[in-house]
Amino acid sequence: MTGTEPYRDPTAPLDARVHDLLSRMTLREKVGQLNQRMYGWDAYRRTPGGFELTDALYAETERFAGLGALYGLQRADAWSGVDFDNGPGAEDGAALAELVQRHVVATSRLGIPALFVEEVPHGPMALDGTVLPVNLAVGATWDPELYERAAAHAAAELRARGGHVALVSALDIARDPRWGRTEECFGEDPQLAARLTEALVRGMQGSGSGSGELFAPDKAPVVLKHFAGQGATVGGRNSAESELGLRELHEIHLPAARAGVRAGAAALMSAYNEVDGMPCSGNRALLTGLLRDDWGFDGLVMADGLAVDRLARITGDKVSAGALALNSGVDLSLWDEGFTHLEEAVERGLVSEKSLDAAVARVLRLKFRLGLFERPYTTGELPSREAGRSLSTDLARASVTLLSNPDGILPPAPHASRIAVIGPQAATVAHQLGDYTAPQRPGTGSSVLDALRRLAPPGTDIRHARGCALTGGDVSGIPEAIAAAASSDLAVLVLGGSSARTPETEFDANGAALAATDEMTCGEGADLAGLELGKAQYALLDAVVATGTPTAVVLIQGRPHVVPDTAAAALLTAWYPGPWGGEAIAEVLLGLAEPTGRLPVSVPRSAAQLPVYYNHKDTEYGGYVDESAEPLYSFGHGLSYTTFAYGTPRLTGLDVEVDVINTGERYGRSVVQVYLRRLLTPTWPRTLELCAFEGVDLAPGERRTVRLSLDADRLAPSRTVEIRVAASAREALGVRGQSLTAPEDTPL
Amino acid sequence: MTGTEPYRDPTAPLDARVHDLLSRMTLREKVGQLNQRMYGWDAYRRTPGGFELTDALYAETERFAGLGALYGLQRADAWSGVDFDNGPGAEDGAALAELVQRHVVATSRLGIPALFVEEVPHGPMALDGTVLPVNLAVGATWDPELYERAAAHAAAELRARGGHVALVSALDIARDPRWGRTEECFGEDPQLAARLTEALVRGMQGSGSGSGELFAPDKAPVVLKHFAGQGATVGGRNSAESELGLRELHEIHLPAARAGVRAGAAALMSAYNEVDGMPCSGNRALLTGLLRDDWGFDGLVMADGLAVDRLARITGDKVSAGALALNSGVDLSLWDEGFTHLEEAVERGLVSEKSLDAAVARVLRLKFRLGLFERPYTTGELPSREAGRSLSTDLARASVTLLSNPDGILPPAPHASRIAVIGPQAATVAHQLGDYTAPQRPGTGSSVLDALRRLAPPGTDIRHARGCALTGGDVSGIPEAIAAAASSDLAVLVLGGSSARTPETEFDANGAALAATDEMTCGEGADLAGLELGKAQYALLDAVVATGTPTAVVLIQGRPHVVPDTAAAALLTAWYPGPWGGEAIAEVLLGLAEPTGRLPVSVPRSAAQLPVYYNHKDTEYGGYVDESAEPLYSFGHGLSYTTFAYGTPRLTGLDVEVDVINTGERYGRSVVQVYLRRLLTPTWPRTLELCAFEGVDLAPGERRTVRLSLDADRLAPSRTVEIRVAASAREALGVRGQSLTAPEDTPL
Repeated sequence: MTGTEPYRDPTAPLDARVHDLLSRMTLREKVGQLNQRMYGWDAYRRTPGGFELTDALYAETERFAGLGALYGLQRADAWSGVDFDNGPGAEDGAALAELVQRHVVATSRLGIPALFVEEVPHGPMALDGTVLPVNLAVGATWDPELYERAAAHAAAELRARGGHVALVSALDIARDPRWGRTEECFGEDPQLAARLTEALVRGMQGSGSGSGELFAPDKAPVVLKHFAGQGATVGGRNSAESELGLRELHEIHLPAARAGVRAGAAALMSAYNEVDGMPCSGNRALLTGLLRDDWGFDGLVMADGLAVDRLARITGDKVSAGALALNSGVDLSLWDEGFTHLEEAVERGLVSEKSLDAAVARVLRLKFRLGLFERPYTTGELPSREAGRSLSTDLARASVTLLSNPDGILPPAPHASRIAVIGPQAATVAHQLGDYTAPQRPGTGSSVLDALRRLAPPGTDIRHARGCALTGGDVSGIPEAIAAAASSDLAVLVLGGSSARTPETEFDANGAALAATDEMTCGEGADLAGLELGKAQYALLDAVVATGTPTAVVLIQGRPHVVPDTAAAALLTAWYPGPWGGEAIAEVLLGLAEPTGRLPVSVPRSAAQLPVYYNHKDTEYGGYVDESAEPLYSFGHGLSYTTFAYGTPRLTGLDVEVDVINTGERYGRSVVQVYLRRLLTPTWPRTLELCAFEGVDLAPGERRTVRLSLDADRLAPSRTVEIRVAASAREALGVRGQSLTAPEDTPL
Repeated sequence: MTGTEPYRDPTAPLDARVHDLLSRMTLREKVGQLNQRMYGWDAYRRTPGGFELTDALYAETERFAGLGALYGLQRADAWSGVDFDNGPGAEDGAALAELVQRHVVATSRLGIPALFVEEVPHGPMALDGTVLPVNLAVGATWDPELYERAAAHAAAELRARGGHVALVSALDIARDPRWGRTEECFGEDPQLAARLTEALVRGMQGSGSGSGELFAPDKAPVVLKHFAGQGATVGGRNSAESELGLRELHEIHLPAARAGVRAGAAALMSAYNEVDGMPCSGNRALLTGLLRDDWGFDGLVMADGLAVDRLARITGDKVSAGALALNSGVDLSLWDEGFTHLEEAVERGLVSEKSLDAAVARVLRLKFRLGLFERPYTTGELPSREAGRSLSTDLARASVTLLSNPDGILPPAPHASRIAVIGPQAATVAHQLGDYTAPQRPGTGSSVLDALRRLAPPGTDIRHARGCALTGGDVSGIPEAIAAAASSDLAVLVLGGSSARTPETEFDANGAALAATDEMTCGEGADLAGLELGKAQYALLDAVVATGTPTAVVLIQGRPHVVPDTAAAALLTAWYPGPWGGEAIAEVLLGLAEPTGRLPVSVPRSAAQLPVYYNHKDTEYGGYVDESAEPLYSFGHGLSYTTFAYGTPRLTGLDVEVDVINTGERYGRSVVQVYLRRLLTPTWPRTLELCAFEGVDLAPGERRTVRLSLDADRLAPSRTVEIRVAASAREALGVRGQSLTAPEDTPL
């Protein structure tokens, strides 16, 4: 093998290289490129001096005459069993990747390197990876620019460790908080999710990542998860069916994917759930008709783990399941047996070699774009850990959302010198992290208690009582908590849920939790019907509030839970804010930072009133006999320590201008939200649709004009719409709008 | 005007008569035929000697040069304000109809009579009408033949009173018990609903009611409500949007309509809710594309009340709303302003006169089929009240469903001589009736208490304590109930909800309840988020069970409520069984009749696990962290006082045979349920689908072979299916099936 073949020539056009390489490959080699069957952690074993490769890897490369892609080589968590004793960290991840890659290239007749595919849901799911807040917290920042920088950092970490491709949840829309993966959603709104998905793609891939361009060494192609409609499964049940219609899919669940594709996303992951009767990974209308034909997507489609094999339920066997998936538009499989039999599928005439070639070409193209043929082993430079920590903390700080603040409990008055820090989430970092997180080195991060101790004014007396556990009804710790609260000037009560997996967690074949451990109420496989915190937490709240001490309740959670009546307490949610979330929360509690988060989801009053989201259809509905149909807290809601006033919006063409004034005494940030209300329109409209937003930072008394541009595509096909500017969806229901009508012969 | 015009010739073909009449009509007269604007009760006023017509009616007939249709001339209820003081009863309803009709015919230049359209949801909603159990109870009978006879009786009553057309709920599928109109559904299953809808059409219209045939004088054309998908609105919210997809619509929500159309239903009512983004009454794809073009329906489409005007939300005004509805396929409006402006719509070019003519022709055709031109005033003969009572009681008896019976609490042992009858539903008939019910004459019907007193063995000591009200938390009556239970051999605890409207109820413009009165928790406009009975009812149940006296709980309700753990009590549901429901319940309680009802809906454990139905898609789902995802009681479930054994089913072609043996000591009825499980099939299948059922009555020890035929259409387009025979959906999950594969070149 020499360097003279066209596919080895880095100056040759991408298409020519792909074409040339493909023409040299055997059917078996091609099939190998489409498989990603192994768990990465089965490929290596730690030795005293480093790592050695396993027989499992040898068998796999032998079987496929090379290796198409390897999943999770750097993955570390309770499911994989990888931890600091046996897994790769920051210092040796790259060496492990190189070891594996050298073997793959050596066993491939044509020297084709493997793609290393890694979970990067909120930072790399690898030892020493910088953990970011979960997507739901990112949604609460309403700050795509900040998220873009954090995503860039995560990509750089991935590449420096020898990883290539980042699997990132972005496309699921949170429509039912019972779903345990709500934490992986940017929120309930397609516009918010679309803007953050664009930021993700730009941040990870680089801003100019057209499909013909190479990726910089610190940039990573993204697999956007999950395509499509996974947020709409029935009952909030993980990977169950969706019954939703195509129009609903297009209006709510597809815009983030569309935006991601437009931004140049390298790949999408086809979801488990069905759409209009067909699971996404066997859904040609979705993966080919819509994605490739209508949207012009020319990237890669990877199926979710074992999603191809599941198709055997209707095809009768896994060979035909693999054929159905490939023919539908899946290029790369994950863990399935079905795709290993594609050779047989071709021989049986279930799949044409042309279809197979198209899929292989997409895999190869990504490898060429990553420069793997030129630089199979070199990796990017590990970015500074301090920069990562800083970005993670910035995101956490920006996501802390103040939902209520009766009597200005927060920030505490200067004379509040005794603070009781109470609750099962007060003194732990483990439950701040969310699902899909690698084990952390001891001492990483900061709990709320730690941070309050560090950041409170000198002389502040900080006392702590756990009160109760996250789950269960054990109230034996409550008296101690009452005592602490009663003798304090402020009680900070940190409650919530957890997605923390432990070695005791039982897992499904795809890594979703099967039997949740005691404290786990969220994450993949942990759906929660009642949306309730542990029973003892409600008892603890009641007891602490009953002391009469001003109380601030902080919720650390992966979904909106049912929050009790907090008329007497301030209420904040920080979602899962990441390791340094305690610091961000403490800063906001103490008034060292402003609460700037805004709700990316509506907070329901109970599970009985689900679904609850602001952008429902515009039907008159009075509410239930026994409960309001309105959320407790509205999408877009979030208080500040200062106050803002909005001027009358001015509409010029598709530009909206509005003056925003900080009318309070403190610095603050208002998130200007532009909502659309369709008036003359061909199908039944939603009450409101978010169509633009912009955060604006203002000093006390400062006034600034914010200009937002509306997207003409977003307004089509309505003839007349009304534009409303407000600080939340609920507020937008009450403000006067500006009407916008398209000229007679032009659609808007 | 003479009798020589072809349209007046009863021997002329129907089409020719319609065509001739249409050709003579002015545009204004045509528009008049499509309007049904008035409330019928505004057309008359009671006088000492009978009735007189109102200026409102004169104005209406003047405006439209006649009258197309008149809604609710016989309607009596709290909303219309019609009662025994001012409304028409059995003795004078026909005279009132004649009075109005004479005026209409006289004011019509061409002598066109009006259609009198009446609510007949479960018997005529008219004074002295025979009230039947609500549809949900009818669903629980699984007995189309019995229902057909009851429907025939209702039609005969309607026609004898001068009414022509019956509005009947049949098509809504109960998918979310929060919906207040769940009581109007035959259940959650398309097959059960389809069979009962056919029975309804056959019973009311006669079995040979092809579209060219005349209706017998005791038969009434049916308007099947509601088309389509109204059972799938989001959150169980009345007339809210549906987000469901077309495939789900076709598989679950359309089969009953399809069956009704095939059975010859004269008309359908287009629903309020939207389907795939468009309200049904403005949905051409649904009303014309599917209904007329695909299904070949040539009957009438009536819009639900004010549904046309609602379209102005997107068209901008009511004229264009009317045009949209007509162009979509609505023929006859109800109460709307939009259809009154169709003349203007034609003049403005929004509607073609051809489209208008097609709608008018359908209205006229129905009048001809009813023989109204020949016999505008004569009416059918009033059927015997005793027969009506008997049919209503038969249906009620057949619907009583025994859900659990620990330790054989029921029927009571002969020595049980002291029975305490307790609970807010024990001694009232008013709350047995359901929504859409006319006021009852005092003394009509029988409460559970009345009936137990009458039917219990001589010498039985029946004591009564109300215990608490249906709603609210007042527990002051509980001690008295405890005393009664504690000193008895059996406690019968009658709990439930109510749809009873009272003069205090506030109503929306379409008669739906706006503000519910204290005791109303169900019916149109009364959706219930938490599915809970009044709080005091749970306290009462706990208290009664705690006495240790064997307890039988009877639920009288319009939806499945959350029932507490009844491990210690027998549990029955009778839905709303109608006026004589108390008698039916008492017979079953005492063992004078067998419990033969089977659940037409799954009973959820809580609102938090919704949706819950057996025929979900076949996805592996382990359940919620905090609750099972399975229902508490399965669709199809219902115990007997005897026991049954099923033999191994034998499959011959599309016929299934199974031996059923009564293995117990008492007579009983088993409902043999045949479920389908799709194996090789082009789209993702449901876990199970009911595809046939048959009730079989057996004496102790008797064995009978039941033969059921499968519908080939029902099995398509699957290649291989499995057939399972069981006594409930849950049981069907565990039985062995018989496989059925289509020959290579034939679809099943």
